[in-house]
Amino acid sequence: MRETWILSCGTELTLGQTVDTNAAWLAGQLAALGYRSVRHVTLPDDAVALRETLLQAAAVCDVVLLTGGLGPTVDDVTREALAAAAGVPLEVHPPSLEQMRAFFAARGREMPARNAVQAQIPLGATALPNTCGTAPGIGLRIGGKACYALPGVPFEMRAMFVQCVAPELRGTAAGEILLCRELHTFGLGESDLGVRIEDLMRRGRNPEVGTTAQFGQVDIRINAAAPTHADAEALLDQTEAELRHRLGAVVFGREADTLASVVGTLLLAQAWKLSTAESCTGGLIGHLLTDVPGASRYYVGGVVAYANEAKADALGVDRTALAAHGAVSEVVAREMAVGAARGFHTECAVAVTGIAGPDGGTAQKPVGLVYIGLHTPAGTSVCEYRFGPDAPRDVIRLRAARTALNLLRLALLDPAAGCCRLKPQGHRILPTIFLMFG
Amino acid sequence: MRETWILSCGTELTLGQTVDTNAAWLAGQLAALGYRSVRHVTLPDDAVALRETLLQAAAVCDVVLLTGGLGPTVDDVTREALAAAAGVPLEVHPPSLEQMRAFFAARGREMPARNAVQAQIPLGATALPNTCGTAPGIGLRIGGKACYALPGVPFEMRAMFVQCVAPELRGTAAGEILLCRELHTFGLGESDLGVRIEDLMRRGRNPEVGTTAQFGQVDIRINAAAPTHADAEALLDQTEAELRHRLGAVVFGREADTLASVVGTLLLAQAWKLSTAESCTGGLIGHLLTDVPGASRYYVGGVVAYANEAKADALGVDRTALAAHGAVSEVVAREMAVGAARGFHTECAVAVTGIAGPDGGTAQKPVGLVYIGLHTPAGTSVCEYRFGPDAPRDVIRLRAARTALNLLRLALLDPAAGCCRLKPQGHRILPTIFLMFG
Repeated sequence: MRETWILSCGTELTLGQTVDTNAAWLAGQLAALGYRSVRHVTLPDDAVALRETLLQAAAVCDVVLLTGGLGPTVDDVTREALAAAAGVPLEVHPPSLEQMRAFFAARGREMPARNAVQAQIPLGATALPNTCGTAPGIGLRIGGKACYALPGVPFEMRAMFVQCVAPELRGTAAGEILLCRELHTFGLGESDLGVRIEDLMRRGRNPEVGTTAQFGQVDIRINAAAPTHADAEALLDQTEAELRHRLGAVVFGREADTLASVVGTLLLAQAWKLSTAESCTGGLIGHLLTDVPGASRYYVGGVVAYANEAKADALGVDRTALAAHGAVSEVVAREMAVGAARGFHTECAVAVTGIAGPDGGTAQKPVGLVYIGLHTPAGTSVCEYRFGPDAPRDVIRLRAARTALNLLRLALLDPAAGCCRLKPQGHRILPTIFLMFG
Repeated sequence: MRETWILSCGTELTLGQTVDTNAAWLAGQLAALGYRSVRHVTLPDDAVALRETLLQAAAVCDVVLLTGGLGPTVDDVTREALAAAAGVPLEVHPPSLEQMRAFFAARGREMPARNAVQAQIPLGATALPNTCGTAPGIGLRIGGKACYALPGVPFEMRAMFVQCVAPELRGTAAGEILLCRELHTFGLGESDLGVRIEDLMRRGRNPEVGTTAQFGQVDIRINAAAPTHADAEALLDQTEAELRHRLGAVVFGREADTLASVVGTLLLAQAWKLSTAESCTGGLIGHLLTDVPGASRYYVGGVVAYANEAKADALGVDRTALAAHGAVSEVVAREMAVGAARGFHTECAVAVTGIAGPDGGTAQKPVGLVYIGLHTPAGTSVCEYRFGPDAPRDVIRLRAARTALNLLRLALLDPAAGCCRLKPQGHRILPTIFLMFG
């Protein structure tokens, strides 16, 4: 495989004030194009250090990728360093200047004079259009090697790589390519899952299989090396099939699938609509659901019922029940789910009430106690979870939101039985106390 | 200040399958000890490349930190590379071997034979005890410079740095230390903001000032170098005061402050309560508000009114207005805000309706068109924004949510005038079309 270095430029990166995610993303994209990333170097906003590293990289690898330092301020030194490394002067690129003026004009503003510097590129270089921001990227040759400088803002960088760099690199790599695929699972801890697929994770196997866990979700990465795309895809398909066979409904999707997008697909299949009632998750479930384009086809809306009055007023939760059992209780979770389904005229509803902390916990109701109510045409159930007491607030909230979506997913996989079937499955797959109510 | 390089070792890092967070964490710790991190290099599991990079680093900086590659398998090459760089052989370190056997014994297991290799260290090096795992770290000198090799697992690495490395480095930093502070701004683009503080951002100035922008928020980092903590704090205070003087209400907070936490503080000061009505943001504003512990003191709840029926049913938006003007309109944003305040009995409410895309845009109402309704005791207003049409769905949603919180913040800064004062300020500070309605 041909080799690349990835350089990231920014004092905020070397000082540790920002974690660089660009290099890892680029490395994955490059692998799929047949380029193996063998070095990432992060540098401060220092034109001399950047020039030297560019020359060092160009001397030993085939393609150099660089992100950051293309902004309009004096600490943005990438343009200058590229020109110095290539031994050419900077010059204004009139089409980029025009494009930037148009970018500001489309937003009803005049371009600040300072931004003009972003239209400068080294003599003989190519300007890479920025479809999401102001600064163009730059493509040029340094020491005979292709070098691409992209913006540091991740979504601008990604769009530019896909539109301008990937098409140039595609098909130019010699020998093997590396394709990656990711499966997503929910409901089984990383080590329990690892035991079931230990033989597939053996080092040196092709495809390689590895796992990473975060907030209850465990992702499985599959990396296949092969001479052609078709061969690599076949290897990936084979291993994916084996993983799905072993893990069953624990696998909820692959690649860009999310719990929310999978729930959406399942709702569309039933032509059912969904509403939400959120207390401790504060709108996060609605946010996750509406992250999916087209969610309006199945998601009607929800209530963020943070205060007790909101639970009573907006969801019709019984005030006597609130007083007798407290807001974090099985009864209230059930009434929230039923109230949302009734109020929004939906077949399905999920409701979450819990204690996200760091304060508000008691011996009986510790931080991390969460009740999730689920209503489908097959019935209403409530599950109790303990995500604390040591986990931080944001972890408890995200685990609660994802668990709610996963419960809904499992119910939708068997819509006739619905949530009434959750108990045994839940007991097996969820590392939590799990109570069921009719 | 003395300078450090941070090396991260692991093919999973160079291939982009794992994002390296160790380097950023170490850089922050080192800065507070008076060591400036000037380079991060990520390498594959390749003993030759690692040895060369160790020698390169030791030739130009004062202290080298290295993470990863200390595991028991053949692809863990750090021990070998360290020995080669120092020009000494590896030897077994009996106390480390004992410690590892005890680690396994405490877990009721016998130590696998292959783990023994983890007790090898270069001749003359120091073993750094691992209190959370098996592999000891290694401290040694390469080319006369201090070098520390730590595990790649973040929590093992952090514990070892705090226990073994920080005490050795503390007080050795030849005088100066580096303290960092971050201010957060909203409402002014990065280049417009840069112009106002250009002199403070001049290269070589102490404190150094730099900016980073994302989703409408621009953060200003201040890095002060000084002989003592007190001196550095004084420098930071001085520059912070100057920045606040120049930027006024554009600065909304510092360090852990968020728009949502600042809004919360301002609401508490007025003893006002808040509710939300969200369409295209789908619960994100509620989520951001309830990220703040104690948000229940001022945030009552909200409605995620994704479908038109939900806007009418749950917020009382006039169906005739919905039909006449469409859901994404000034009239509907206003009625959503008023409806939320009425339904939740709150003094304040924010409402968002817009087109997040990627589909659903028209010539008249393009993707990115967002109306934000704001209700306070001083009145109700609606602002129109165009965050698109090229920005991705998640960017449009986050910008809309943050802009809504910022509008509320500005209104609360002058509660008597409230949102009626927003027009001139908004026109000046917001890079968007901005329409006001009494």
